[in-house]
Amino acid sequence: MRLRARFAETDAMRIVHHTEYFVWFEVARTELLRSIGLPYTEIQRRGFNTPLVEAYASYKAPARYDDEVEVKIWAGRIGRSSLRLEYEVTKLPGGEPLCVGHTVHVLIGGDGKPKKIPDDLKERLSPSSTERPTRRTPSRTSSRAAPP
Amino acid sequence: MRLRARFAETDAMRIVHHTEYFVWFEVARTELLRSIGLPYTEIQRRGFNTPLVEAYASYKAPARYDDEVEVKIWAGRIGRSSLRLEYEVTKLPGGEPLCVGHTVHVLIGGDGKPKKIPDDLKERLSPSSTERPTRRTPSRTSSRAAPP
Amino acid sequence: MRLRARFAETDAMRIVHHTEYFVWFEVARTELLRSIGLPYTEIQRRGFNTPLVEAYASYKAPARYDDEVEVKIWAGRIGRSSLRLEYEVTKLPGGEPLCVGHTVHVLIGGDGKPKKIPDDLKERLSPSSTERPTRRTPSRTSSRAAPP
Amino acid sequence: MRLRARFAETDAMRIVHHTEYFVWFEVARTELLRSIGLPYTEIQRRGFNTPLVEAYASYKAPARYDDEVEVKIWAGRIGRSSLRLEYEVTKLPGGEPLCVGHTVHVLIGGDGKPKKIPDDLKERLSPSSTERPTRRTPSRTSSRAAPP
Repeated sequence: MRLRARFAETDAMRIVHHTEYFVWFEVARTELLRSIGLPYTEIQRRGFNTPLVEAYASYKAPARYDDEVEVKIWAGRIGRSSLRLEYEVTKLPGGEPLCVGHTVHVLIGGDGKPKKIPDDLKERLSPSSTERPTRRTPSRTSSRAAPP
Repeated sequence: MRLRARFAETDAMRIVHHTEYFVWFEVARTELLRSIGLPYTEIQRRGFNTPLVEAYASYKAPARYDDEVEVKIWAGRIGRSSLRLEYEVTKLPGGEPLCVGHTVHVLIGGDGKPKKIPDDLKERLSPSSTERPTRRTPSRTSSRAAPP
Repeated sequence: MRLRARFAETDAMRIVHHTEYFVWFEVARTELLRSIGLPYTEIQRRGFNTPLVEAYASYKAPARYDDEVEVKIWAGRIGRSSLRLEYEVTKLPGGEPLCVGHTVHVLIGGDGKPKKIPDDLKERLSPSSTERPTRRTPSRTSSRAAPP
Repeated sequence: MRLRARFAETDAMRIVHHTEYFVWFEVARTELLRSIGLPYTEIQRRGFNTPLVEAYASYKAPARYDDEVEVKIWAGRIGRSSLRLEYEVTKLPGGEPLCVGHTVHVLIGGDGKPKKIPDDLKERLSPSSTERPTRRTPSRTSSRAAPP
């Protein structure tokens, strides 16, 4: 997914504020769910929510106002009711790595209790259907393998 | 009400982003309602909401990271179901004017329809009980008298 | 310009927070300047800035998470060193009006002083080259004619 | 440091959006540096910056609009040019844990290169002078000991 750094997302260091990467992760989640045919609004209509219980980001280089970036997202560990998603933000057009990170979500029902992730959702989130980068340099693989 | 400009509120011009003043106005609204004994959470518990239907700000000088500012708020026109609030943001300690503005809110019920503002709320919001600046220079009065 | 309401842009009323429309206006400004061949980053490179001195929005109906909206922008009054931009946000696909507003900007130089807006910029911002809505209902025209 | 959850910080789940905790961490950093006599604005005046290179948060329970929270901050590992800060957010008045996290910062000079953290800064950040919680339950200690 591609987007442009907004002016409102910058800070007085003249770079994109670190919190905005988590917003970009969230935008990528929204588009991932839409792309696998299960938009988040549909998940909510079924009475579920997927609160975020963990967020991590490691910053490699800054993005600046009006930079175009690519946000890759792919599924990591999928547990009984929890789901880890992985992210990589690169700067276009060259692909310079800006940020890698992950978030962990729990599927809860209307009663606020964790629910088993349905098999069809698990399947659609499997690595082959998500955007996991295929060309990875050893260093970047390892930085993702053991974050943080 | 006093607060400090947060780093996350700044932008790449090294000043507080213009949208953040509306957030400060909102913080001042929260504290105004608490101070008159009717916190917004209580308004919601009674089944009301006060959506914002108009927002205006005029910017005189920038605030910067870690500046301490004072946000004054006072009631303007109070209609049957609508309420206009006025704001002035000054920089401490000198009181340099940074921003004046207003917001207009409508009191709605659980059915989404406008409701009559209760008399006791009107009374508590009357000028004598709110923070309207008493010492006003002619220039600042006129800039507020005919905004925008 | 089209965009989708981000989850991070919503608030506890389950609608897009009013400040986010000003961010959308800003995104539209960025794209307007790019579309007329004068990206803001280029304006800055020439030593200019265009601080915002006034912001106004009138809210007609709420946007919600994942709504797709269209943000129209067109030039209003262009003075010697100041520029007023007009905005209209509608909900797609139907075009329901959500918000109209304006911002006023001043062109300043490296010395912080107002500068004359160059003729070529004035020309490129003229109504014929910007996105001014062509089909306007009387009511919407009038609501824009006399804000706020 | 105490603060109140702002309405603008909430999202459509009616809770404080996860990114806002990182803003609260930042506010706590600002106050920590002020409290040890070295405000960040002073660090910048000396030609240094402390960009954030890593951010982590684990969310235990949600904060809601107008909740009063306490944000504790204390120094973790201090390296040659890097500094890890630890955070704990609890809900007042009871002290319910809402979030724990950390950030890692690098001290850089005007040339953008990492610089040795001055001894006096190291000393002032030592555990005894910062807010490290003294009463910790085993479970909370362990959750901090091995994040994430």
